[in-house]
Amino acid sequence: MAISFAERTKSMKASEVREILKVTQRPEIISFAGGLPAPELFPVAALQEVSAKVFKESGSQALQYSTTEGYSPLRQQIARRMNQKFQTSVTADNILITSGSQQALDFSGKLFLDKDDIVLCESPTYLAAITAFRTYGPKLIGVPTDDDGMIIDELEKLLKIYPTAKFIYVIPDFQNPTGRTWSVERRQELVKTAAKFELPIIEDNPYGELRFEGAIPPSVKSFDTQGLVIFTGTFSKTFCPGMRIGWIAADKKFLEKFVFIKQAADLHTSSISQQQLSKYMDLYDFEAHIRQIISVYKVRRDAMLSTLEEYFPPEAKFTRPQGGLFTWVELPPKINTSDLLEHCLKSNVAFVPGNSFFPDKKVENTLRLNYSNMPEDRIQEGIKRMAAVLKK
Amino acid sequence: MAISFAERTKSMKASEVREILKVTQRPEIISFAGGLPAPELFPVAALQEVSAKVFKESGSQALQYSTTEGYSPLRQQIARRMNQKFQTSVTADNILITSGSQQALDFSGKLFLDKDDIVLCESPTYLAAITAFRTYGPKLIGVPTDDDGMIIDELEKLLKIYPTAKFIYVIPDFQNPTGRTWSVERRQELVKTAAKFELPIIEDNPYGELRFEGAIPPSVKSFDTQGLVIFTGTFSKTFCPGMRIGWIAADKKFLEKFVFIKQAADLHTSSISQQQLSKYMDLYDFEAHIRQIISVYKVRRDAMLSTLEEYFPPEAKFTRPQGGLFTWVELPPKINTSDLLEHCLKSNVAFVPGNSFFPDKKVENTLRLNYSNMPEDRIQEGIKRMAAVLKK
Repeated sequence: MAISFAERTKSMKASEVREILKVTQRPEIISFAGGLPAPELFPVAALQEVSAKVFKESGSQALQYSTTEGYSPLRQQIARRMNQKFQTSVTADNILITSGSQQALDFSGKLFLDKDDIVLCESPTYLAAITAFRTYGPKLIGVPTDDDGMIIDELEKLLKIYPTAKFIYVIPDFQNPTGRTWSVERRQELVKTAAKFELPIIEDNPYGELRFEGAIPPSVKSFDTQGLVIFTGTFSKTFCPGMRIGWIAADKKFLEKFVFIKQAADLHTSSISQQQLSKYMDLYDFEAHIRQIISVYKVRRDAMLSTLEEYFPPEAKFTRPQGGLFTWVELPPKINTSDLLEHCLKSNVAFVPGNSFFPDKKVENTLRLNYSNMPEDRIQEGIKRMAAVLKK
Repeated sequence: MAISFAERTKSMKASEVREILKVTQRPEIISFAGGLPAPELFPVAALQEVSAKVFKESGSQALQYSTTEGYSPLRQQIARRMNQKFQTSVTADNILITSGSQQALDFSGKLFLDKDDIVLCESPTYLAAITAFRTYGPKLIGVPTDDDGMIIDELEKLLKIYPTAKFIYVIPDFQNPTGRTWSVERRQELVKTAAKFELPIIEDNPYGELRFEGAIPPSVKSFDTQGLVIFTGTFSKTFCPGMRIGWIAADKKFLEKFVFIKQAADLHTSSISQQQLSKYMDLYDFEAHIRQIISVYKVRRDAMLSTLEEYFPPEAKFTRPQGGLFTWVELPPKINTSDLLEHCLKSNVAFVPGNSFFPDKKVENTLRLNYSNMPEDRIQEGIKRMAAVLKK
């Protein structure tokens, strides 16, 4: 006899990004590796004020156990904002409050995935979604993408090979890691294809509101007539990540099951945090706060793109995101970005090699750069250092 | 083609207790059904003060992403308190902060359980642990218990039938639902048996600090020389449940895997809540606060037990818990407590029928009563109403 773990634990290993982040916490390192929002923009004073108000007005109730679904006024505020920003037509009854959108991804795996089930996703895609889904033992199949999003013909081909696929996972706005945004046509085609195959879509949208130019396109969920799109959102990028508040917006047939999952997983998300956030949205101008984040990140993105343009070799391709936190660099095939990272660390600059973001293949010549977490001069300095390493 | 959920969803249904709780929220009902702490004892003013301090001193850091393991000072405080109160010898490195101890139970299932695996537990046992484990498809086998805890001979017999059992789940202090506390001898024997079979033990201890008389006995973990005992704790009953802060204390071989699970599940528990709790323990006398809870609950327990004694039929047996939140009533076999509940609801009094707490059999003549959530006169009135219904 011996201690015996569940089979799912075999896929558990430290995330490469987390390991890199540990190394890059030294202050002398310019790190483009993380995905941290700018902490100087967190509304600390406002939160302190609303926090005091919540303690005064409903302290003991806000500290008691509460409903699994979440704080009703917050669910209403989320539904209202989603409908305004993403052209959906959801109500508070469609909303479950989660502990960040990471929990929404974990729950999606828990709801749908048995061992060896098929998940279709963009290639590359969000690393922590891969990790969350892998807990449940599926096979992740990457669908080829271009600058307009997933190539729907390729998706249809794969659905003929894998007709029992459980769901499609997509990040249509300022995708992590590429920074790309899907065209409206692709969104419509995706919903049509999903309806044809009666296939749920997980639409992960953590960055959509952080758009530096142009209008927010209609979400995939806005085209959803069959209730197949499960939308996951978060306040981590528009408010703060430390409070761990995200949500799932979904048709009742999914939402009631997510509620059971939430109940068994952790009963409910912090009731006091939910009330504080809700009160903040009541008393402060949340849209003005988001505009402030946008104005700061836009300047940082511009600094990164112009420095890349000027200093990186002409063979290097990179995306020009219209919002969000990341750009994506493709270097000539001969360059291995894991090796490059080692050299860059000697010059005190860091990034995430792209390979981890590919669900089912090795791609050695790409990398992800974050621009939200430091001022322009550091961004310029870091990109110049990377360019110098690349030259050698 | 059609939407297809994971097999684990088949076991998902609304918890009977949650359904009862919904009915019993009407103010005219005296409800012994929940397990809510007394909200009038939450340290609202103190929390408001420490909360303001945290915002002032480290606001933007407390609102940023943080480490999966949890806030270091809090992990140290927990380790220190555990060692003082439960005679363990853990360090901060053994502690993972979770979103309540419910999450610790879910993670235990995730770490160990494949479909059809065996879990051994007390009979009856904590309902929400059954729900959490069932997500992973195991068979739960109840081990007979008496007033001193699990009967270890019976456990050994079952371990011969099920030598590949994955873990034993126990609540040795003021067990939910029975209110019973294990003898020290049974704790020692349990650890010996577990060591012999190299079997992990989940020691769930949400109520141990709420002891009304006598000294806290050494925890099961205090006898653990092989690092087999995974201890789960929570601040929901000693501080407040709304913040959702609990913990796992375990040997490194388990803890590192729990950290991976936590990372994939929700990255980390609210960093601001962790800092607030830690600051509260720095600045306030937490032990005095717990003594206050104890003094209030003791009076409520006394009110419940003396009223049961006086008004319930002599054939009714009930436990006399030395702490915690619950007592357990066994009625004559001919009485079905689900039927009794229906009649009691007509008299505006509620409880939880005991049947849901049995992992693998039907027991129709028991019920659980909570005494922490209302003043003595309501308790007395409620028990008298139940007694009147019983007479008919």
